[in-house]
Amino acid sequence: MRRVAIYPGTFDPLTNGHFDILNRSVEIFDEVIVAVAKNASKSPLLSLQSRCEILEICLKDFKRVKVESFDTLLADFAKKRGARVILRGLRAVSDFEYELQMGYANQSLNSELETLYLMPTLQNAFVSSSIVRNILGYQGKISHLVPKGVVEYLKAKGYECM
Amino acid sequence: MRRVAIYPGTFDPLTNGHFDILNRSVEIFDEVIVAVAKNASKSPLLSLQSRCEILEICLKDFKRVKVESFDTLLADFAKKRGARVILRGLRAVSDFEYELQMGYANQSLNSELETLYLMPTLQNAFVSSSIVRNILGYQGKISHLVPKGVVEYLKAKGYECM
Amino acid sequence: MRRVAIYPGTFDPLTNGHFDILNRSVEIFDEVIVAVAKNASKSPLLSLQSRCEILEICLKDFKRVKVESFDTLLADFAKKRGARVILRGLRAVSDFEYELQMGYANQSLNSELETLYLMPTLQNAFVSSSIVRNILGYQGKISHLVPKGVVEYLKAKGYECM
Amino acid sequence: MRRVAIYPGTFDPLTNGHFDILNRSVEIFDEVIVAVAKNASKSPLLSLQSRCEILEICLKDFKRVKVESFDTLLADFAKKRGARVILRGLRAVSDFEYELQMGYANQSLNSELETLYLMPTLQNAFVSSSIVRNILGYQGKISHLVPKGVVEYLKAKGYECM
Amino acid sequence: MRRVAIYPGTFDPLTNGHFDILNRSVEIFDEVIVAVAKNASKSPLLSLQSRCEILEICLKDFKRVKVESFDTLLADFAKKRGARVILRGLRAVSDFEYELQMGYANQSLNSELETLYLMPTLQNAFVSSSIVRNILGYQGKISHLVPKGVVEYLKAKGYECM
Amino acid sequence: MRRVAIYPGTFDPLTNGHFDILNRSVEIFDEVIVAVAKNASKSPLLSLQSRCEILEICLKDFKRVKVESFDTLLADFAKKRGARVILRGLRAVSDFEYELQMGYANQSLNSELETLYLMPTLQNAFVSSSIVRNILGYQGKISHLVPKGVVEYLKAKGYECM
Repeated sequence: MRRVAIYPGTFDPLTNGHFDILNRSVEIFDEVIVAVAKNASKSPLLSLQSRCEILEICLKDFKRVKVESFDTLLADFAKKRGARVILRGLRAVSDFEYELQMGYANQSLNSELETLYLMPTLQNAFVSSSIVRNILGYQGKISHLVPKGVVEYLKAKGYECM
Repeated sequence: MRRVAIYPGTFDPLTNGHFDILNRSVEIFDEVIVAVAKNASKSPLLSLQSRCEILEICLKDFKRVKVESFDTLLADFAKKRGARVILRGLRAVSDFEYELQMGYANQSLNSELETLYLMPTLQNAFVSSSIVRNILGYQGKISHLVPKGVVEYLKAKGYECM
Repeated sequence: MRRVAIYPGTFDPLTNGHFDILNRSVEIFDEVIVAVAKNASKSPLLSLQSRCEILEICLKDFKRVKVESFDTLLADFAKKRGARVILRGLRAVSDFEYELQMGYANQSLNSELETLYLMPTLQNAFVSSSIVRNILGYQGKISHLVPKGVVEYLKAKGYECM
Repeated sequence: MRRVAIYPGTFDPLTNGHFDILNRSVEIFDEVIVAVAKNASKSPLLSLQSRCEILEICLKDFKRVKVESFDTLLADFAKKRGARVILRGLRAVSDFEYELQMGYANQSLNSELETLYLMPTLQNAFVSSSIVRNILGYQGKISHLVPKGVVEYLKAKGYECM
Repeated sequence: MRRVAIYPGTFDPLTNGHFDILNRSVEIFDEVIVAVAKNASKSPLLSLQSRCEILEICLKDFKRVKVESFDTLLADFAKKRGARVILRGLRAVSDFEYELQMGYANQSLNSELETLYLMPTLQNAFVSSSIVRNILGYQGKISHLVPKGVVEYLKAKGYECM
Repeated sequence: MRRVAIYPGTFDPLTNGHFDILNRSVEIFDEVIVAVAKNASKSPLLSLQSRCEILEICLKDFKRVKVESFDTLLADFAKKRGARVILRGLRAVSDFEYELQMGYANQSLNSELETLYLMPTLQNAFVSSSIVRNILGYQGKISHLVPKGVVEYLKAKGYECM
């Protein structure tokens, strides 16, 4: 039984929280597909391409992880990839409520789909992409919140950050 | 004592969750006014007119239900209609917090106003208009989430959905 | 259509929060049955009889309210009384979660049963029987938290309180 | 890589909610150990032996599931069994908070341990052992809340229930 | 030891909830700096200047309160002002989660920074700037939700409100 | 203005979470009274005397901290000590709800009383006395969860722990 899991998100940008979840899910699954949502509606800080490039750079040593973008329903994407498991990190209560709602919605569209929730390690429990973007807006220090490759990529693209 | 209740919302579009709440509130009240908020700020998917038309179609067999749009404070609308009861469906915690806050705000504007909360049946506990709009954005299956009249109306208007 | 609602609880003792909910529910229903749970498991402060007596005293001016004790499943009690509506006050999140769980459990036992939630007025939003019992344990002031009849009854029974 | 997961609980008694989680976790793991906590402090309704017998009966067709009782720290039990994954069902907010707290506590005792959370299917979202025990206390209907083997076992032991 | 605390927010506009928190924090701290966030992203109703003017007018009798705008990271602003304490009002669960997340983010940027949370008095527990703006959008009554100076200022600026 | 704050609790036993809150509150207040509740109802693991002794040992280097037990209403205890501020650590949502309820109850008994909430540092965010007692029940490792003096005290009293 080959186990494929999908870890979906906007990754705008990748944070230590995401990285941490990925790090641990490769111990449990044979393959993890990082599914980057195009997410036109939310007007992301970084382009879909930039978000994928950052992931490719930071995850290049993960043998069982693959990065793919998608612009369909997550339930359909999972079906196409033969994945039965969706992975989600859980941070806070509002997260949790939203996650349950989306989990039930996905299950209503693809009854074979299972959503598994992981909790980030304690030191990453408050990290989120939106906090990183917020600090970035003031040229603040983000190097303790994201993998090293993210800071390097952003600096190369002309962002000021520490 | 004739009991009039108001069931306010954006209904963008009507879902099985709303329908379920309505179905049960007509057993408790003599008249239920579905009050459709214009809601300019949220930039709805469907026009106020379309949202009202869908409601009229789907609720045409409900003798004691009336559909009306409004563009005032809910507390004022209720006063004008002689309604003392606001009906709200409760889904999740974030809902609940927001609902309490709005309930207290409405009460501060019209002290005679009572807000009653109903819980949807379990199979509709996760359904929301925003989930329906999200799936609709990808031409996905919504027929298990909304009354039949909604799918027919949307198809007639050129929306692709199942 | 005669509307009968049940307002269940332990009422150990009756608080301003309960009183407030009752005060408003009689505006909406033709009859409200205050259903006092025997609740052997929780080892109440006051006996079932005392709790009922307090309710009788404090609610004697309410024409459409009846006090009854019960020691069965609430869903069965409602069926026997021909009531289709259960009334519950909502205070806080933990309340809310528990209430939803009980509401769904009751519905699973009696599908005709509807649970309606009311929010207490703001000044009673924090009052609970357990807080009253806690203060009572230190002979503290409870007269701002319970109807006047409760303090009088407790004093007559030998409780020290203000 | 052989994946062993532990599904811990009191199972007093087994419910459809537990059964549902088990049903889905065997699709993801090579072996699932149902770890029944002795739980002296909570004074369970059923003895540890009865709870284990019920599980053995109801899970006899699950090839990859094993039932074991334990009376140590969960983190130690997992280490002894070579399991790196703890499975937990998530129901409500209070659950969630408690689960996170226990998850972090377990991780602080055994850093290799991963806790994964699954959401029950919607129709089991409100079912809990304490609700079943509550209904059982009034000889009510529990057959829609627990696997068939549970009702049979309880009846054979002299419990009145439907 | 001179204690300086910062009370940050958008104050769009100042409400009785904010005023209440300020009123009580001056009893605890030697100096309270009301830090008005520029907040370009949220497109406020009132300009930064108007929000500051309202605060100056309504707080003119508070000897130990100073109003300042800022457009940097809060953690940096606090460092520059020599403040070790951030004050925040707590209203509801969603608030709370968000507040914890921001508190940990600020602490990660300035480890000397302490966030203290106060609860508003009960009658202000539901008041928020967004509710005031919502009512203002319909020319409704806000005089029970904001200090007197706010209504006067808004009327002078041509807003219709009561 | 001399600022006295009360930090109440059962401290059964003192944890790193409590210690952390105390460590930071001495930076803000001139005197902090650790108020140990007798708490007969909860049947504590350690006697009131043991809990106080542990606190005295672990806090002996804190010049501005005083340990006192109390067996009255907290609102009365604060009045007697001339303290206007109650300090509480906030951990999770259920905490938060309960804390708000108690805060409002205390305020209703002593309107001068202010409750301030602090958040523990991230690494202590999950630590609680009940988790420590739970691990202690299995002779597990608690040295990473409590100050050193606690382990030493417990061992001297014959408890097995690491």
